[in-house]
Amino acid sequence: MQHHFERLKANKLFELFVISVILVSALLIGAKTYPLPPKVVTATVVLDYLITLFFVVEISIRFIAEANKKLFFKSFWNVFDSLIVLVSLVPIENSELAVIGRLIRVFRVLRMVSIIPELRILLTSLVKALPQLGYVMLLMFIIFYIYAAIGSTLFETINPELWGDIAISMLTLFRVMTFEDWTDVMYETMQVYSLSWIYFLSFIFLSAFAFLNMVIGIVVNVMEQEHAKVRQEDQLAAGTQEPSLRELQQQLDEIKQLLKHKT
Amino acid sequence: MQHHFERLKANKLFELFVISVILVSALLIGAKTYPLPPKVVTATVVLDYLITLFFVVEISIRFIAEANKKLFFKSFWNVFDSLIVLVSLVPIENSELAVIGRLIRVFRVLRMVSIIPELRILLTSLVKALPQLGYVMLLMFIIFYIYAAIGSTLFETINPELWGDIAISMLTLFRVMTFEDWTDVMYETMQVYSLSWIYFLSFIFLSAFAFLNMVIGIVVNVMEQEHAKVRQEDQLAAGTQEPSLRELQQQLDEIKQLLKHKT
Amino acid sequence: MQHHFERLKANKLFELFVISVILVSALLIGAKTYPLPPKVVTATVVLDYLITLFFVVEISIRFIAEANKKLFFKSFWNVFDSLIVLVSLVPIENSELAVIGRLIRVFRVLRMVSIIPELRILLTSLVKALPQLGYVMLLMFIIFYIYAAIGSTLFETINPELWGDIAISMLTLFRVMTFEDWTDVMYETMQVYSLSWIYFLSFIFLSAFAFLNMVIGIVVNVMEQEHAKVRQEDQLAAGTQEPSLRELQQQLDEIKQLLKHKT
Amino acid sequence: MQHHFERLKANKLFELFVISVILVSALLIGAKTYPLPPKVVTATVVLDYLITLFFVVEISIRFIAEANKKLFFKSFWNVFDSLIVLVSLVPIENSELAVIGRLIRVFRVLRMVSIIPELRILLTSLVKALPQLGYVMLLMFIIFYIYAAIGSTLFETINPELWGDIAISMLTLFRVMTFEDWTDVMYETMQVYSLSWIYFLSFIFLSAFAFLNMVIGIVVNVMEQEHAKVRQEDQLAAGTQEPSLRELQQQLDEIKQLLKHKT
Repeated sequence: MQHHFERLKANKLFELFVISVILVSALLIGAKTYPLPPKVVTATVVLDYLITLFFVVEISIRFIAEANKKLFFKSFWNVFDSLIVLVSLVPIENSELAVIGRLIRVFRVLRMVSIIPELRILLTSLVKALPQLGYVMLLMFIIFYIYAAIGSTLFETINPELWGDIAISMLTLFRVMTFEDWTDVMYETMQVYSLSWIYFLSFIFLSAFAFLNMVIGIVVNVMEQEHAKVRQEDQLAAGTQEPSLRELQQQLDEIKQLLKHKT
Repeated sequence: MQHHFERLKANKLFELFVISVILVSALLIGAKTYPLPPKVVTATVVLDYLITLFFVVEISIRFIAEANKKLFFKSFWNVFDSLIVLVSLVPIENSELAVIGRLIRVFRVLRMVSIIPELRILLTSLVKALPQLGYVMLLMFIIFYIYAAIGSTLFETINPELWGDIAISMLTLFRVMTFEDWTDVMYETMQVYSLSWIYFLSFIFLSAFAFLNMVIGIVVNVMEQEHAKVRQEDQLAAGTQEPSLRELQQQLDEIKQLLKHKT
Repeated sequence: MQHHFERLKANKLFELFVISVILVSALLIGAKTYPLPPKVVTATVVLDYLITLFFVVEISIRFIAEANKKLFFKSFWNVFDSLIVLVSLVPIENSELAVIGRLIRVFRVLRMVSIIPELRILLTSLVKALPQLGYVMLLMFIIFYIYAAIGSTLFETINPELWGDIAISMLTLFRVMTFEDWTDVMYETMQVYSLSWIYFLSFIFLSAFAFLNMVIGIVVNVMEQEHAKVRQEDQLAAGTQEPSLRELQQQLDEIKQLLKHKT
Repeated sequence: MQHHFERLKANKLFELFVISVILVSALLIGAKTYPLPPKVVTATVVLDYLITLFFVVEISIRFIAEANKKLFFKSFWNVFDSLIVLVSLVPIENSELAVIGRLIRVFRVLRMVSIIPELRILLTSLVKALPQLGYVMLLMFIIFYIYAAIGSTLFETINPELWGDIAISMLTLFRVMTFEDWTDVMYETMQVYSLSWIYFLSFIFLSAFAFLNMVIGIVVNVMEQEHAKVRQEDQLAAGTQEPSLRELQQQLDEIKQLLKHKT
C-alpha cells in the first residue's frame, strides 16, 4: 500500500487536484465575508466538511507514503500541514467560539505556501534573514525603549492616550517612525515643551538611520551570496577549460630537468 | 509604391512630423480639460478629425512599406498602434458615451512611447521584470488575503466601510501598507480589541519585508545583468589582447617534445 | 597689480574671511525673519550695504587677478557669483518690491556652495545625473499626463478643486504618489465610480515602479563608476607588478627558436 | 586584590549577572510609567538604590582590575559607563527636579549597548558613517536654509504658526520632506500665491534627490568595504595556492640561460 500511495503522491494530476482544493478552500473563506443567502451558507458548511475530510485523507496518504515515519515529522512543512488540518478538526459548536473557528480555517490558505516549492523557498529565506539582523533589531528596540521611557515621563500629562505608559509610547513612536500624522503628535507637546521638536527629530534620525542600516545589511548579504555563486561558477568554468598556473610551473620544472639531464 | 513608402517611413523629417502630430494630439487632450469658448471647441473637434485621419494615413504607409505583411502584425508595437487608431475611428455620437470617446483618445498619448525607441525599450524592460517577481507577488497576495480574511471576520462590525468584505479589507490593508492614516484604522479597532495592534504591526512588518525583498530582487537582477555584460566585455578584450593559459601550455608541450626528440 | 591680487586670492586667510562674510550674510537673512527692535533693523540695513560692498570688491579682485579675462566668464561658478552680486546691486526702494529685494538676497547663501569646492563637486554631480535619467522622467511624465487626462475627464464633476483641469490633476496625482491622504481622494471618487480604486492602484503601481527604476538606474550608474575605478586601479597595479601572459608567450617563442636553431 | 578583581571581571557568570541587573533596571524604568500601588512604589525606590549601589561596585571593580589606570579613562565606553553611574548618584530630593532624576535613570538602559560588544561595534559604525556624509548634509542644510528663508519671507502672513521665523520654517520644511500633510501646507499658500506649488515641488525634488544621494553614498561605501575584504581574501588564497606570473617568468629566464650556455 505504501508503494501505491507513494506513486499517487508523486502523481502530477493528484498534486494539481490538491492545489485546486486549497484554492477552493481559500475562495470559500473569501466568499464567507460577503452576505450570503441561507442556502449558499448551508452549501459552504457542507463544502467546508468535505475540504476538511479531503485534507485528512491527503495528509494520511503522505504519511503512509513515507517509508521512514520518523522522517515525516522532521520536515517542518509536514508538521505545519498536519497542525493546520488537526486544528480545523476541533469541533466548535458554541456560537461564541464560532469566530475563532472561522479564523482557524483562514490559515488553510497558508497550505498554498507549503504546496508550492518556490513559495516555500521564499518563506524560508525570509525567515533565515531575520536572525542575521538580530543585533540591529535589538539596538532599534533599545532606542525605542529609551525614547518611550522619556516620552511617557515628560508627555504623560499632555496626552495620556498617546503617552500613558511605556507600551503605548512605543506604539506612538512607531507611528512617528512611519511619519503618520507625526506633526500632530509633536505640535501638541510643543505647546508645553517648546523644545520637544529635538526629541522627535533626533528619534526620526536615529530610527531612520538604524532602519537604513538594516536594509543595507540585507542588500549586502544577498549581493554577497550572488557574487559568491558567480565566483564559484567562474572557478568551476576555469577549472575545466584552462590549466592552472601551478600546472604550467610543473611543466617548466620538467623542461628544466630535461635540459639539466642533457648537460 | 512600397519602395516609395519605405523611403518615406525612414525619412527623418517624416518621423519628426509624426512626433509633432502626436504631441499636438496630446496637447489637445490636455486643452480639452480646461473650459473653452465654443469656437475653440469646434476647432478642437476639427483638429481631432484631422489627427485621426493623419494617424490612419501614417499606419497605412507603414503597413504598405512593410515587405512581409505577416511580419507587420508580429511586432507588438505595430499592433498596439493599429489598435489605438482603430478604436478612435469608432463613431461615438451618443452624448452618454461621449466620455468614453474622450477617454479612448487619451490613449493616443501612448503612441509617444511607441514612436520613441528609448521609451519602447524602457517599457519592455519594465514589463519583462514583472514575471521574475511573480512568486514574491504571489506570496504578498497570500499575506494580504489571509490578513484581509482575519480583518473582515474580526472588524466587520466595528467599521463595515473599511472591513465589510474581503475585497474592501484588502484595499484597507493596502492603505495601511502605504502608512496612510493607518493609526486611525488601528485606534478604531483597538477600542474593541485592545490587542489588535499586533494584527497591524505584524502586517506592516510582513508586507514591508516582502516588499523589500521584491525591490532587492529587482536590484540584484539588474546588477547581475550589468556585471554579466562587463564580464563578457572583459573576456572579449582579454581574448584579443592576451593569449589564454591553454595556449601557453600547448607551447610548453611543444618545447618538451623538441627537447625529447633531440635526446 | 594683477600679480598682487592673485596672491591675495590664493591667501588662505582671505578665503576664510570671504567664507565668514558669506556666513554672516546668511545669518543676517535668517535674523531678518524674526521680529527685531528698530535699532537692530537699522544695523542690519547697514550690515547689508557693507556685505554688498565687500562682495563687489571680492568679485573685482578675482576678476583682476585672472590673467585671461575671457576664461573668467567661462567658469560657471564665476558667472554664478557675479550674477548674485550684480542682482543684489539693483536698488529697490519701492516698498512693494521690498519682498523681492529680500528674496534676491537669500540667494547669497548659494555663494556658500560656490566657495566650498566639495559642495561644488557634489552639485555638479547631482546636475550631471539628471540627463541620464531623462527617458525615465519622460516616461513618468507620460504616465502622469495620461492619468491626469483620464482623472480630469471622469472626476471633474466630483471635486473640481482636485480634478479641475489637467494641471491640477497632475498635482493631485503627485500627491497620491507621495501617499499624502490619497485614500481621501480615492474614497471620494469611489462614491460615484465604485471601481475607481483600479485607477488609483494602477497609478500607484506604475509610478512606484517607474520611480524604483529611476533610483536603481542611479545606483547602478554610481556603482559602475566605482567598479570601473577599482578595475582600472587593479590593472594599473597588475601592470607594475606582474608580467602579462603575452610577455610570457614571447619568451616561450624565443626558447623554441633557440631549441630549433640548435637542432 | 587587582588580580582577584581581574579574574572576577573576566568571569562569565559575573558578566551575566551584570547584564541581568541592567535588564532589571530597564524593566524598572518601564514599570514606573504605569500607575503602581504605593507599596510597589516603595519597593522600586529601594530597588533603585540597590541598582545604583551595584553599578558603583561594578565600575569600581573594573577600575581596580585595570592594571594601567590611565588606560581605563582612555576607553570611551568606560568613561560612558562611569558618567551614567556618577550622574545617577546626584541626590535629587526636590520634587520639582524629580522628573529630571527619572530621566537620568533612563539612560541606564544605554549600558545595555556598552555591555554587549556587538551593539558597541554597531553604534561605532553608525557614528563613523556620519562624517563621511558631512558635505551632503551641509548641502541639505543650505537647501533647507534657503527655502526656509524664502518661505518665511513669502508665507509669514499666511500662517505664522508654520512660517513665523526661519527656525519654524525649517521644521515645516522637514515636515514637507516627510510628506506629512504637506498638501494642507501647500493648498493654504496656493490661496494667496497660486504658483507656490513650484516652491513645494522643487523643494521635494531637491531634498529627495539629495537624500537619495546620501543613501547611495552609504550603500556604495559599505559595498566597497565588503568588496575590498573579498578581494583581499582572494589574493591571500591565490598567494598560497598559485604561483605568480612573475615566478613563471623567472623560470623561463633560467631555461633560456641554460639553453644559451649549452650552445
